Amino acid sequence: MRTPLRIGMVGGGQGAFIGAVHRMAMALDGDFALVAGCFSSDPANTRSTAASLGIAPERAYASFEAMAAAEALLPEAQRIHAVSIVTPNHVHAAPAQLFLASGFHVICDKPLCASLAEGETLAAAVARSGKQFALTHNYTGYPMVREARELVHSGALGTLRKVYAEYLQGWLSSDLESSGQKQAAWRTDPARSGPVGALGDIGTHAFNLLEHVSGLRVEQLHAVLHTFVPGRRLDDDDMVLLRFGGGASGVLCSSQVCFGRENGLSLRLFGTKGALEWQQENPNQLQWTQADGTLKVLTRGGATTSAAARSLTRIPTGHPEGYLEGFANIYRAFARSIRGESDIDAAFPTVHDGLRGLRFIDSCLKSSAASAWHPLA
Amino acid sequence: MRTPLRIGMVGGGQGAFIGAVHRMAMALDGDFALVAGCFSSDPANTRSTAASLGIAPERAYASFEAMAAAEALLPEAQRIHAVSIVTPNHVHAAPAQLFLASGFHVICDKPLCASLAEGETLAAAVARSGKQFALTHNYTGYPMVREARELVHSGALGTLRKVYAEYLQGWLSSDLESSGQKQAAWRTDPARSGPVGALGDIGTHAFNLLEHVSGLRVEQLHAVLHTFVPGRRLDDDDMVLLRFGGGASGVLCSSQVCFGRENGLSLRLFGTKGALEWQQENPNQLQWTQADGTLKVLTRGGATTSAAARSLTRIPTGHPEGYLEGFANIYRAFARSIRGESDIDAAFPTVHDGLRGLRFIDSCLKSSAASAWHPLA
Amino acid sequence: MRTPLRIGMVGGGQGAFIGAVHRMAMALDGDFALVAGCFSSDPANTRSTAASLGIAPERAYASFEAMAAAEALLPEAQRIHAVSIVTPNHVHAAPAQLFLASGFHVICDKPLCASLAEGETLAAAVARSGKQFALTHNYTGYPMVREARELVHSGALGTLRKVYAEYLQGWLSSDLESSGQKQAAWRTDPARSGPVGALGDIGTHAFNLLEHVSGLRVEQLHAVLHTFVPGRRLDDDDMVLLRFGGGASGVLCSSQVCFGRENGLSLRLFGTKGALEWQQENPNQLQWTQADGTLKVLTRGGATTSAAARSLTRIPTGHPEGYLEGFANIYRAFARSIRGESDIDAAFPTVHDGLRGLRFIDSCLKSSAASAWHPLA
Amino acid sequence: MRTPLRIGMVGGGQGAFIGAVHRMAMALDGDFALVAGCFSSDPANTRSTAASLGIAPERAYASFEAMAAAEALLPEAQRIHAVSIVTPNHVHAAPAQLFLASGFHVICDKPLCASLAEGETLAAAVARSGKQFALTHNYTGYPMVREARELVHSGALGTLRKVYAEYLQGWLSSDLESSGQKQAAWRTDPARSGPVGALGDIGTHAFNLLEHVSGLRVEQLHAVLHTFVPGRRLDDDDMVLLRFGGGASGVLCSSQVCFGRENGLSLRLFGTKGALEWQQENPNQLQWTQADGTLKVLTRGGATTSAAARSLTRIPTGHPEGYLEGFANIYRAFARSIRGESDIDAAFPTVHDGLRGLRFIDSCLKSSAASAWHPLA
Repeated sequence: MRTPLRIGMVGGGQGAFIGAVHRMAMALDGDFALVAGCFSSDPANTRSTAASLGIAPERAYASFEAMAAAEALLPEAQRIHAVSIVTPNHVHAAPAQLFLASGFHVICDKPLCASLAEGETLAAAVARSGKQFALTHNYTGYPMVREARELVHSGALGTLRKVYAEYLQGWLSSDLESSGQKQAAWRTDPARSGPVGALGDIGTHAFNLLEHVSGLRVEQLHAVLHTFVPGRRLDDDDMVLLRFGGGASGVLCSSQVCFGRENGLSLRLFGTKGALEWQQENPNQLQWTQADGTLKVLTRGGATTSAAARSLTRIPTGHPEGYLEGFANIYRAFARSIRGESDIDAAFPTVHDGLRGLRFIDSCLKSSAASAWHPLA
Repeated sequence: MRTPLRIGMVGGGQGAFIGAVHRMAMALDGDFALVAGCFSSDPANTRSTAASLGIAPERAYASFEAMAAAEALLPEAQRIHAVSIVTPNHVHAAPAQLFLASGFHVICDKPLCASLAEGETLAAAVARSGKQFALTHNYTGYPMVREARELVHSGALGTLRKVYAEYLQGWLSSDLESSGQKQAAWRTDPARSGPVGALGDIGTHAFNLLEHVSGLRVEQLHAVLHTFVPGRRLDDDDMVLLRFGGGASGVLCSSQVCFGRENGLSLRLFGTKGALEWQQENPNQLQWTQADGTLKVLTRGGATTSAAARSLTRIPTGHPEGYLEGFANIYRAFARSIRGESDIDAAFPTVHDGLRGLRFIDSCLKSSAASAWHPLA
Repeated sequence: MRTPLRIGMVGGGQGAFIGAVHRMAMALDGDFALVAGCFSSDPANTRSTAASLGIAPERAYASFEAMAAAEALLPEAQRIHAVSIVTPNHVHAAPAQLFLASGFHVICDKPLCASLAEGETLAAAVARSGKQFALTHNYTGYPMVREARELVHSGALGTLRKVYAEYLQGWLSSDLESSGQKQAAWRTDPARSGPVGALGDIGTHAFNLLEHVSGLRVEQLHAVLHTFVPGRRLDDDDMVLLRFGGGASGVLCSSQVCFGRENGLSLRLFGTKGALEWQQENPNQLQWTQADGTLKVLTRGGATTSAAARSLTRIPTGHPEGYLEGFANIYRAFARSIRGESDIDAAFPTVHDGLRGLRFIDSCLKSSAASAWHPLA
Repeated sequence: MRTPLRIGMVGGGQGAFIGAVHRMAMALDGDFALVAGCFSSDPANTRSTAASLGIAPERAYASFEAMAAAEALLPEAQRIHAVSIVTPNHVHAAPAQLFLASGFHVICDKPLCASLAEGETLAAAVARSGKQFALTHNYTGYPMVREARELVHSGALGTLRKVYAEYLQGWLSSDLESSGQKQAAWRTDPARSGPVGALGDIGTHAFNLLEHVSGLRVEQLHAVLHTFVPGRRLDDDDMVLLRFGGGASGVLCSSQVCFGRENGLSLRLFGTKGALEWQQENPNQLQWTQADGTLKVLTRGGATTSAAARSLTRIPTGHPEGYLEGFANIYRAFARSIRGESDIDAAFPTVHDGLRGLRFIDSCLKSSAASAWHPLA
């Protein structure tokens, strides 16, 4: 008889966005039971969040340190297997290292940390721990993103030449952070977000997606990080020219001041004999221009989709899946890795993807400051 | 501290489609814990399904009768609050009546039953029982369907004149039932589906959707039920002309032989001063032609959407929701009704919607046989 | 040296819509020079229209009878080769017959005439005359409509089962004819339009398109003709169920009260191994569901389009063509027929298509009156 | 009585693409009669082209010099009013200057010339001549481009922040010029195209479009011009970062190696309170995100479109217009200017737009060579 893995959560109290997403994603397949948490630095918030989630009061902890310590002392049949970290960026590294050191698997929101140095320390900690570490670059969990990756790797596009990645939002077009909106407040605060705003929040998603799907590696970049909204302390708009190993080139744009755009992440790849386009807001489709020049619209679960893509779907084609299912695919793969189910497709983004994202941020900062091309190691 | 409601399931063993959908839908919000089930008429299937779902072996029942009897005898703190019935159509009425009579709430897949007579008996049983009864016409759970309904009721379209509803699929374009495919087999078998095929399987969804959104009532119809695939014993294609009270008219088409169509449910409404269009395969959008003739594309969670529609969303606009979330909205409303949370929007399809669907089927059968218009009471 | 064919026009004075369309369509390829006309029953309108078009005053005629007589007396090197008839429906038959009898080719707007009896007389006149007669069912001139026809005829769809044709407009949602709008006035006036409104104006286009593309013939139909706008004397909304020879069935809807719809003509065909969809408002694309279930989006001029479709395009793919080019294809084919250029694809709709449309109207009227199925011979 | 303006053509012989487009564009409204031409450097081609167009043999000239001389000697009632220059880029300046000096109005294809120096000389010649000079940046002739410009100028978008312009084609993905394809041959030949390939051919269109619509002026740019196809001598792919006066920024990409893309010109503008998107391949629509965050889809000729945009349409909304009509709008405005019809909207791109494009090319070349930002005066 299969029982769910027990999991705890750090962050995700009332008023948060991404914590609730993680909880729905982990619930969908019954792989996890959420049994513990430190949901906020405010103990009252933690207690009420725990109550609303049916978590026993004694496992609603006042600090993540207390949680790690107490859970480690519980009998094996009760203590958590893993922890989900959904705090602002500056509170990723410390709990992640502590829980790893305490013997727990970790799944953590992106970006990995608030600085490259922190990230490198954390990557070393993951290596030492022997535990699973997943980073929720959730967009790689979409079935048609996987399908795109399979098509590229199969050679269907020939040699890649051009990549256009963009992630455009409009919700920070005005000075929302001054209104007390929590999401806006921490994402535009260097103390909590780290040295970048839009670039870390969404640009790293686009970067991860493009390298994941294309298999290309950025070698040089020229970034322009800019802040449009007066008074804002972090970039809210980025343009990055890219040169890849092998000769391809591209453009990555991330912006949170593109008025009216909701969650406009898209990827377009052009090769010597084919092209692909995927848009996050219409995620069940993938547009494939074939070698004869005709456009095929592939649908999630469709007759010709790959086994890899189909392994990430739950319901028949035509019944739309969305953001939560893509997110849940990361959790499901994480669960399978914890269970040691190595015979299935257990790929998920790891600490190495996280480090790569931090190096991308670092390189963009240096390029933008110098107004010049900069390498990405 | 909030604890999940305990629920059991009838049907949904390995090889079934809709059972897994119900389980994901009930899991999403943590409102239900699935603790018991009779998943199949084959006890081995029931046992293995139960094991895969983490259900205790002693609550994996050999028959729904055994389940109802045993659960009723459990202490209140252990026994189920409700049962989910996800069997083929001919096994809806009996378990529903038994569980209601045994004191349990019931949520049941559609169509309500295999015959109008059965449905009327069941509706009486629901009334007698005082228990909640939900019917999973899940498409009414989509936020933008709710938004459409709100717009119609607000008068934004003026007086409705024309309604076009269609539900086109292609998966039964060939004789799939002869291949041993389980879904095709029971859905084309009069003994398990009842007197209609496509009309019951998908036509009733379209019918429910159009009456739900438009607020109109069909008074007369002219149906053509047809079977295209040789040897098939139930209709696989339907065309129905509609006359509504108040003078509007429309067309409803449901077909499972529209080659290549995946799950093409759509609704278009035209009034004296506005129009709406919604397509299930792109459910996060609603197209509204305003009184000045311009087209506005409303998005789920967008700035101008109604409170009612927003109450059915979980994540921000631009992060696509899909089929499972719409389904989960039915389960969430059902849970709220069970808990007596009457201060929130607890609307869900009931046995009356189910009866209405059976009357629609009955009227279509009579119209088609007579090749003439027939009333729908 | 190639010189343009000389053409005259009956109808199309100031305030008309379709006359200007015919003039642009005939101008596009330089096949015709417009040198004469009786543009209106109002001689002043005829004179000013002629002047604005650079037509010599002596060839601006007070009546079509005067025009036919005078042109026939001109030297062959000056007189017109053909006449274009763009009057309201009730003034098609008389000038057409007169010009044919006077030795001129005729191209005429649709529907053919205001009654089936008139149409049969005209068809006989065409046969007697030995002259070319083209009917501007212009939508068959679109390249991707031709491509659809080629695909059907090639067997790419297998045996056709279902056809959905619709033509929805909204411009007559209100009582526009009372405002003095000329187009609305004559199109809703039985004396000028004949016995039907929307069915003749747009329903016949949809009917012609579906038979043209599918190669099917309607054998039985059940029509519901209805008038929504109070005081209007002709139908403004039609629903027609169709049975074709060979067992296919379908639905044709034409309406001019579908609020906000501009010129929503579309065609969908489903066969045993493929499907096609075309929409007039996006005419450069054709959606083809192939036998393996995947959707291919064919574009006008694209690599895989047929020679027949390519013969109807003027500019490269990606440079949108529209309504006028489709219309011009009818004129170009008409010109080629007049010139006897039989080695090229000179297909255009003829008097037989017009007669078929009148029979469709006649059958719909009888079916709607009887509320019963009626044959279409 | 209105008579057409007489026009001659330089270039556009058999095998050319854009010459035929110009001829259809000028024919559409009857404003011009093509009566003379030097269609090719090959006299046989000129003669046969002239014959196929119904041009008198004596006005089919062996050289543009001969044409200018002979036409100037004709009586005023016979000689051309204007000349249309549709040769490859290196043969724009000389005939333009000669015809201007000979007293003729000129309409010329883009880019203006093959070098900035040539362009400046030509601009001076235009100023001296007192004649009309139009440059066929035809995309500004689309009605919904005009609508976009009107909306920006009305303040509907607030202050512009971001502009994304792209023009992606795929037809030069392979070494087509080696196959003898004429279009590919001259467009990739520095001797005929000038110092840039894709940037001049399509990048200047995108640049003109973005400045025309936005009203912004590029002040600084960072360009990367690249050649992907081995052996090709001019750029086939460009990426340009842009900084505008007033603080806006943007990206312009032009490429002819984006496999499968047909004619993918698009423009997206984001301001402080609104956004616009227009795509050339779907030119009858304009997507406007309004200040309240909702998306409105404006259609050509729709109820709320501006008078300026409506002045560029010929047929009712829903009847698609395309590339040729946009092109024809440039010709119509040119004709009106020649006729001195100053009471109407006679805007068309001029020699100043052409010079601006040449300066853009020049600045991109210098930026790309230096791998650094460069001013655009």
